[in-house]
Amino acid sequence: MAKYAILGVGALGGLYGGLLAKSGVETHFLARSDLDHLQKHGLQVESPWGNFHVNNLNVYQSPEEMPPADVVVVAWKATSNPSLPLALEALCHAQSIVLVLQNGLDVEHDAAAVVGEDRVLGGCCFLCCNKIAPGHIKHLDYGRIVFGEFGSQNSGQITHRMQMIASDFRAAGIDIEPSANLLSVRWKKLAWNIPFNGLSVVLAANTQEIMEDPAASALAKSLMEEVREAAAANGVAIEATHIQKMLDDTRRMVPYDSSMLLDFRAGRAMEVEAIFGNPLRAARQAGYNPSKIDMLYQQLSFLGNRSRTL
Amino acid sequence: MAKYAILGVGALGGLYGGLLAKSGVETHFLARSDLDHLQKHGLQVESPWGNFHVNNLNVYQSPEEMPPADVVVVAWKATSNPSLPLALEALCHAQSIVLVLQNGLDVEHDAAAVVGEDRVLGGCCFLCCNKIAPGHIKHLDYGRIVFGEFGSQNSGQITHRMQMIASDFRAAGIDIEPSANLLSVRWKKLAWNIPFNGLSVVLAANTQEIMEDPAASALAKSLMEEVREAAAANGVAIEATHIQKMLDDTRRMVPYDSSMLLDFRAGRAMEVEAIFGNPLRAARQAGYNPSKIDMLYQQLSFLGNRSRTL
Repeated sequence: MAKYAILGVGALGGLYGGLLAKSGVETHFLARSDLDHLQKHGLQVESPWGNFHVNNLNVYQSPEEMPPADVVVVAWKATSNPSLPLALEALCHAQSIVLVLQNGLDVEHDAAAVVGEDRVLGGCCFLCCNKIAPGHIKHLDYGRIVFGEFGSQNSGQITHRMQMIASDFRAAGIDIEPSANLLSVRWKKLAWNIPFNGLSVVLAANTQEIMEDPAASALAKSLMEEVREAAAANGVAIEATHIQKMLDDTRRMVPYDSSMLLDFRAGRAMEVEAIFGNPLRAARQAGYNPSKIDMLYQQLSFLGNRSRTL
Repeated sequence: MAKYAILGVGALGGLYGGLLAKSGVETHFLARSDLDHLQKHGLQVESPWGNFHVNNLNVYQSPEEMPPADVVVVAWKATSNPSLPLALEALCHAQSIVLVLQNGLDVEHDAAAVVGEDRVLGGCCFLCCNKIAPGHIKHLDYGRIVFGEFGSQNSGQITHRMQMIASDFRAAGIDIEPSANLLSVRWKKLAWNIPFNGLSVVLAANTQEIMEDPAASALAKSLMEEVREAAAANGVAIEATHIQKMLDDTRRMVPYDSSMLLDFRAGRAMEVEAIFGNPLRAARQAGYNPSKIDMLYQQLSFLGNRSRTL
């Protein structure tokens, strides 16, 4: 059975890493702010999949203290990626693979620069989950991971190692689905993240407030349509029904403060480049200039710059 | 000499009406929230044109108490226009004219519906001025009024009555300029109001914060360019040099909280339709769809709706 290293014990790392550890898979966590709390009190997870607590967590302050891992799961935000090269150099052996569970586009490049693109997988997590206190994760709704190969050599395939990871995750009770088209998975996720992460910050609003207001929900839909055109320009087809389904799902969803809104409120860096800047540049390189995504990117850049200055 | 009625004793009505009254022109004010204060303490104006105080202000609670006026100056925000018909019916005699000093586009229609378009003039005020306390106006910078005929019969002319108004205002020390093209004046003013009023609310920022941030100032410029295209679609040419001059002027200006930001912070209605909705519809009717103005309109509509709900 593969050994896992989980980078980051936030919402993602806590939920998925916690489930892996609970299932008996050998799992080692790299923690930052919550290290002391996790060592003393373990990890507390509230989830519709069942509440649980993990004591005796293998939790570390630095990657040098950790054993090498077969699979390194990057579960921190893209804004923490400056710490990625040292972590991967410490944790990876010659066959280790890296699974990047970050929002946005082109977020696998940082890992690929260290271990080579053919040892990198990427995935999107479709879930409502927040860290509500140190070592305390609250999973609210959804939860599926869709993941695929990043490197050109394996792209388009569902590889053996993907099936192995899916098997470990499923045995731990995690809803996970391998995909032969990671780029498509990423653009479809962006069709939600771009309107709802972005507008939640600019309008200081949760998903319900956005969906219940005629102007804001129309704007969310326009932004989704721009993501759809940007994806098409990049060779990824998103069906119109997918846009409508996401809007309907979001309307039915529990009122949710996006992770970007929580980051902004707490004065933390936002994933503006991963979720907005990279897709915008990819669209432009493909000859399409999405003007509302551009405007949202400019607004979030301003808010992020000011937040760091304050 | 003409008798003036000033509707509203906010920043505009206080500064310009105060200067008219001080100069000896017969001036009557319709006040709302500050009536008691103005009756007891008069009007206090701080201005780079000279500080002054007007005692014994002719100030009224309702238009029925006021004498008829030769010129009715509409100096309250467009959001107060539901009170306009009753006021004009009470104040106007057969030759009275109405000067609408409101921001936005098509704001003269409300007055024209009562007295007929050929008795309506419109004007834009290029000034930084706020009401900072009851009966206390603080004029910070600039101050010019540019005005013109609204009705089709007089459009394109600088009429005798315009020269009479200009003469009264100039005698009171007010910088005022008649224009034969009111539509052009309005669109040029919108080129400032749309980016800076709108972004100030959405980004919670003053003019200096917007101009000093690369992303926000680029967005302000994009919005100006969209106003320029919308104006062109409506037959109004705005030179590229005018856009650059406004940006340069704004960068040099004292840091300024737009009146829309003050309204939003105070929970008052914002002039979203006058400044955003009307120009957007005019652009679309002329075959141009400005997508960033549309997005700003949607964002402000959401914020305005929520503000009224709170």
